[in-house]
Amino acid sequence: MNTIQYPSALLENAVNEFSKLPGIGQRTALRLALYLLRQDEEMVERFGTSFIAMRQHICYCDVCRNISDTEICRICSDKQRDHQIVCVVENVNDVLSIEETQQYRGVYHVLGGIISPMDGVGPADLEIESLVERVKSGVVREVIMALSPTMEGDTTAFYIFKKLAAFDLKITTIARGISIGDELAYADKITLGRSIVNRTVFQIN
Amino acid sequence: MNTIQYPSALLENAVNEFSKLPGIGQRTALRLALYLLRQDEEMVERFGTSFIAMRQHICYCDVCRNISDTEICRICSDKQRDHQIVCVVENVNDVLSIEETQQYRGVYHVLGGIISPMDGVGPADLEIESLVERVKSGVVREVIMALSPTMEGDTTAFYIFKKLAAFDLKITTIARGISIGDELAYADKITLGRSIVNRTVFQIN
Repeated sequence: MNTIQYPSALLENAVNEFSKLPGIGQRTALRLALYLLRQDEEMVERFGTSFIAMRQHICYCDVCRNISDTEICRICSDKQRDHQIVCVVENVNDVLSIEETQQYRGVYHVLGGIISPMDGVGPADLEIESLVERVKSGVVREVIMALSPTMEGDTTAFYIFKKLAAFDLKITTIARGISIGDELAYADKITLGRSIVNRTVFQIN
Repeated sequence: MNTIQYPSALLENAVNEFSKLPGIGQRTALRLALYLLRQDEEMVERFGTSFIAMRQHICYCDVCRNISDTEICRICSDKQRDHQIVCVVENVNDVLSIEETQQYRGVYHVLGGIISPMDGVGPADLEIESLVERVKSGVVREVIMALSPTMEGDTTAFYIFKKLAAFDLKITTIARGISIGDELAYADKITLGRSIVNRTVFQIN
């Protein structure tokens, strides 16, 4: 596509801002900007300020480092949850994904990334020390590693495992196996192999 | 998808604002909001204010009603262009599309919509009267209808045609025919029929 000659610098600026978002091309950005132009001035004001307010005022939970509006997040201040079980995840998105399953009643620890020498992310850049401190405090009985099954995820899990090995603690990892609905023929060999080694007792649910 | 329990009202608000955009679902909205959270505060400030500034300060060209930063838009104030030919389009997007072709050197008239009784849009809601006034002023020699070939587009073109019939004016419409690259077998009958009736002299270009 040729570069578009915009009739207005204000429009062009708005389109360029939209284009900075991941997955939004210039065409879509233009469509979104023209959509906003057709809306109430108040609606657009609410739209724009919502992002500025979020970026300026959001904070991170003192305990689990998840995004929060308060010092202690909703999950960590929920007395109904099991504070003895801590699930270690890479980011906020993973917390939301696990919460959606409605299968977990423990709490979380958000690392804020994953060890990745290629991207210059080392253990010191992550919330690993705060996890160790949390375990030291003595409440935690189990740490569940819920990191992606990639080289970086495995490295991070191994690093944390070594850091926590000295404590009286159960360290587990989420099950790897064939996804529900997947066909065996299309599963990769490593996943299929692990799913046989870590087979579970047959259950009717 | 279940409704997501967001860890922060500020995040939830930003996600909801993104979801209001056409074609942006809750998942994408969340991804975009989390992306903004990882950016500089200044970048997010520029992002948010760009839309507010656009909505507040943008104006419409006195002549052609296209979006503009000034009273007369870039195209209407361009002396290189042929001000005797006016191309009538539905909206700003159509101006951009035609400009991209680099095949048109006349000027435009942006209706700001199309006659659509179903959506409660009548002729009085559109920039038709201003087009008539423009023609009355005597500079215009040709009006090109470049509206979508839909029921609403045809109705609007017909209405404008009647309004302008009394003037000494050439009224044309953009050619309908088989798109370049399209196969005849897949063309609809009306288009194919029109393309035969309105056949042009064979040219080697």
